[in-house]
Amino acid sequence: MIFRVWAPKAAKIAVECNGLVVPMRKESGGWYSAPTKGSAGDDYSYLIDDQSSTPDPRSRWQPGGIHGRSRVLDHSHFRWNDTDWQAPPLATGLAYELHVGTFTPEGTFLSTIDRLDHLVNLGVTHVELMPVNEFSGSHGWGYDSVDIFAPHHCYGEPNHLKQLVGACHTRGLAVIADVVYNHYGPVGNYLERFGPYFTDRYTTPWGRAVNLDGPGSDEVRRFFCDHALMMLKDYHFDGLRLDAVHSIFDYSAINFMEQLASEIDALEQELGRDLILIAESDLNDPKLIRSPELGGYGLDAQWNDDFHHALHTVLTGEATGYYQDFGTLASLAKTLQNAWVYDGCYSKFRDRHHGRSPHGLSGHQFVAFSQNHDQIGNRAKGERSSHLMDADRLKIAAAMLLTAPFVPMLFQGEEWAASSPFLYFTDHQDPQLGDAVREGRRREFAAFGWRPEEIPDPQAHETFMRSKLDWSEIAGSPHREMLDWYRGLVKLRRERISPGDLRLETATVKYDEKNRWLAYERGSLEILCNLSDRPMTVGSSARDLLLASKSGFRVNDGSVAMPPMSIAIADKR
Amino acid sequence: MIFRVWAPKAAKIAVECNGLVVPMRKESGGWYSAPTKGSAGDDYSYLIDDQSSTPDPRSRWQPGGIHGRSRVLDHSHFRWNDTDWQAPPLATGLAYELHVGTFTPEGTFLSTIDRLDHLVNLGVTHVELMPVNEFSGSHGWGYDSVDIFAPHHCYGEPNHLKQLVGACHTRGLAVIADVVYNHYGPVGNYLERFGPYFTDRYTTPWGRAVNLDGPGSDEVRRFFCDHALMMLKDYHFDGLRLDAVHSIFDYSAINFMEQLASEIDALEQELGRDLILIAESDLNDPKLIRSPELGGYGLDAQWNDDFHHALHTVLTGEATGYYQDFGTLASLAKTLQNAWVYDGCYSKFRDRHHGRSPHGLSGHQFVAFSQNHDQIGNRAKGERSSHLMDADRLKIAAAMLLTAPFVPMLFQGEEWAASSPFLYFTDHQDPQLGDAVREGRRREFAAFGWRPEEIPDPQAHETFMRSKLDWSEIAGSPHREMLDWYRGLVKLRRERISPGDLRLETATVKYDEKNRWLAYERGSLEILCNLSDRPMTVGSSARDLLLASKSGFRVNDGSVAMPPMSIAIADKR
Repeated sequence: MIFRVWAPKAAKIAVECNGLVVPMRKESGGWYSAPTKGSAGDDYSYLIDDQSSTPDPRSRWQPGGIHGRSRVLDHSHFRWNDTDWQAPPLATGLAYELHVGTFTPEGTFLSTIDRLDHLVNLGVTHVELMPVNEFSGSHGWGYDSVDIFAPHHCYGEPNHLKQLVGACHTRGLAVIADVVYNHYGPVGNYLERFGPYFTDRYTTPWGRAVNLDGPGSDEVRRFFCDHALMMLKDYHFDGLRLDAVHSIFDYSAINFMEQLASEIDALEQELGRDLILIAESDLNDPKLIRSPELGGYGLDAQWNDDFHHALHTVLTGEATGYYQDFGTLASLAKTLQNAWVYDGCYSKFRDRHHGRSPHGLSGHQFVAFSQNHDQIGNRAKGERSSHLMDADRLKIAAAMLLTAPFVPMLFQGEEWAASSPFLYFTDHQDPQLGDAVREGRRREFAAFGWRPEEIPDPQAHETFMRSKLDWSEIAGSPHREMLDWYRGLVKLRRERISPGDLRLETATVKYDEKNRWLAYERGSLEILCNLSDRPMTVGSSARDLLLASKSGFRVNDGSVAMPPMSIAIADKR
Repeated sequence: MIFRVWAPKAAKIAVECNGLVVPMRKESGGWYSAPTKGSAGDDYSYLIDDQSSTPDPRSRWQPGGIHGRSRVLDHSHFRWNDTDWQAPPLATGLAYELHVGTFTPEGTFLSTIDRLDHLVNLGVTHVELMPVNEFSGSHGWGYDSVDIFAPHHCYGEPNHLKQLVGACHTRGLAVIADVVYNHYGPVGNYLERFGPYFTDRYTTPWGRAVNLDGPGSDEVRRFFCDHALMMLKDYHFDGLRLDAVHSIFDYSAINFMEQLASEIDALEQELGRDLILIAESDLNDPKLIRSPELGGYGLDAQWNDDFHHALHTVLTGEATGYYQDFGTLASLAKTLQNAWVYDGCYSKFRDRHHGRSPHGLSGHQFVAFSQNHDQIGNRAKGERSSHLMDADRLKIAAAMLLTAPFVPMLFQGEEWAASSPFLYFTDHQDPQLGDAVREGRRREFAAFGWRPEEIPDPQAHETFMRSKLDWSEIAGSPHREMLDWYRGLVKLRRERISPGDLRLETATVKYDEKNRWLAYERGSLEILCNLSDRPMTVGSSARDLLLASKSGFRVNDGSVAMPPMSIAIADKR
């Protein structure tokens, strides 16, 4: 086979495979190539300028982890059983975020398959996997990506990931991969030796910014675009979730994200199936999801953090950090009509005006959630909503999410109010970095009044183990009851709301900040919510209650009496 | 009067005026205010946290320079004589870039007035002043702006600048100010003491990047927008030229430039006269000049460096640095039809693909030039085209520029092939910085084979003095002849081309790379150019020659015979 690698920084480079060191021939554009006797399954590494052996930046398999040798993988060898697969539409879907390492006790691609039927029964349509690329150590969230073309070796072999995707498709589930194109992990980043992958022109909170607009950036953009195309084409993923695009810095005239969306559109045509591109963005900038004809990047959807913050603060009363910008029913009502609370108005937390009007966008372009890995795991103790709220409030959160005019997404175990936290866990083999991560975490939460010893140690194995779901608890109380509530909501959503009217600005939302109730209409339904600790009667056009979070609702002619801290979904007259 | 200053970084602040120190009262949003007995003409300074006295960031007058005290200026005191002024349209105009310090021997606002009639006689419609804000030392280009609200004290008093603008208007000349919003000068930058004006998230080649999207950036944006509005409203400027917008970093959802353009649009309505906003941009990104409805920023025009580079390299054969990306007739032809050579294709100099198609834009959105302060002054010895080319080529450059489908701009003295160079000169009072600038300049040009002693010392007074125009030479040969050529071209442009068809893609350009001729049509005219050193006959629909750079042209039926290195403008049949 022929090894090829882009290494414009190298004066000379050789490939070592099967005990033979083969000098590589310089081609145009900084590429090197060498024919070898290697074939699928063989291990190899590169020797740059006679230095120590280095993994392939585009390694498809790192069986020994980030510092180990790369293994040749031929994607064409896998036998797929998902012929003619068509993903369900995201606009009417239900997404579910899961972390392979903690979703099951075994924490592998294959063990994940065992639990897919649970997702199907729940009504999930889109499974979103937290990063499955190779990263530092044996366990972690995955955002310290290093060998992005290689599935994380502790989750299983590359073919196991394909089996997982295939098993999802067999069950009608689409699969979305969370990918990190804004920085590279601090450990095992050998890319610097090869080419100008990074730049100092911009800074990110996590490491060096990716060079998307400087000299040599064509190939860097190719690197990330090719990764995206591989995930969709060779692993049969149905879409990608781009991590933290506000740190993808590119001032060139064709933004990297626009290029990526355009290449994925072309692949969609080639493959004859729908592919989706979703951004996590802190910008509240409609440009990401507007069409290129209107100066946008043409992504399909973006996460809606404002909805989370508005809902979470109303239910918990929390007001520290970025939650200080939310907390009112006015904010919650605004997200239901406008997706964003911050659409150009002043944010106290940011100390500046923030965002822009999403005018003309539709609700199906926003992925919403009442919890996610970040909102849980970035807390001091990885607390889920179920650790912070009583069952009444949890049911309100679920009902709000599943009736809101967005694409709802659940976080693993949310549906049964799982008892396990989702902690921040790492496994950096570099002791200094491990200490720095531990201390950084302690320092971060000291600002919120936590003592160092209260913060779980990210590097402790126990922190990882505690984060695994306990599937045995699902059948018992109160988990079973919560799961039934979610199932009922998903069923009602599917039957009565999706595909519903997802236009935003036309939504009718009424609320009373002082008396703490909120009501809104979705098509022929009315959702009524009492957020106070007192019984409440409000004017309403409700006729029949379809679903209520607790007993005590009474529908009268022109009003509804609601028990304290409750929500109901009713047919309108 | 009441002093007001934004100083969120200050724990306490006082104003000193007329020998009295008055503590200032904290208002909301980081603002402080204090009533004093000061009035117009009084000097004052701020004392932050009891430290040494500091100029006002918004100082309107720094009679003693960047480290001196600020002087109160009441803009309403000036008596304008330009009532009902309406600027001529830029689309049919002729711009002229000048540097107040070197345009006349005296180098002042008032002495500039003495030479305005020359510009009127030449056919200039828009005078563009290189930065007139306060900067370090007594002389310099002005891009090391520090007190941007104050006119440079060595150019004269603020009222003198108003007199200059008024004198332009009296003569029918519009005036554009070159403003620097991408960084602040390295000396005399007291802004850090007051608030978060700068950020480390981005880097610029010249100094700290301006904080346009981080905490506190609302007021930083206000600072620069208010400066722009002051220039237009209180100094009666007709437009602004934004320096190096590729280093104006702003990732927020409403880009600073879009905000600025929108505020200037509103002022335009308020004042009832046209105001223009022009960008210097290295991005080749149509977004800058597209309308906001199409996702653009809504600026009126941008400089077209690609046209300069294409023309300059064809005429000089230079191929170092960024000139390596140009040099062919194909490039020159492409700029005439497409404004940019780099519209998404690969640039060797940048080692990446560059730019984007300007599809749908019009030629009047591009300001073109065959020389400007940067292209001259950033050379080792500040050589104008007249120091690099013979008269034949200079005439071709002028004719190309003045018949191209763009807004042409001349650089001071270009019209008579002035003999004085335009060198890089500075007057930093800090000896260390002075040394660094001198050494940096020498190092930069060492890469092009220059010896240190060959590079004029930027800090030497002589370097500044040598850059002043010598108006006495204008009447003599060969300057008079060149001036007549320019005048003839401007007259022909005004009578036969402007307001012409400035659509780009429809332009017809023919050329022969090997035999080195190029011909293009503009409306009813044909421009024929022989770029070889041999006589040449080319097929043509020319009827009558209107203007020719030298004798020897012969119009036949269906062809034109051209002398070596010549250009002519003809009526088409």
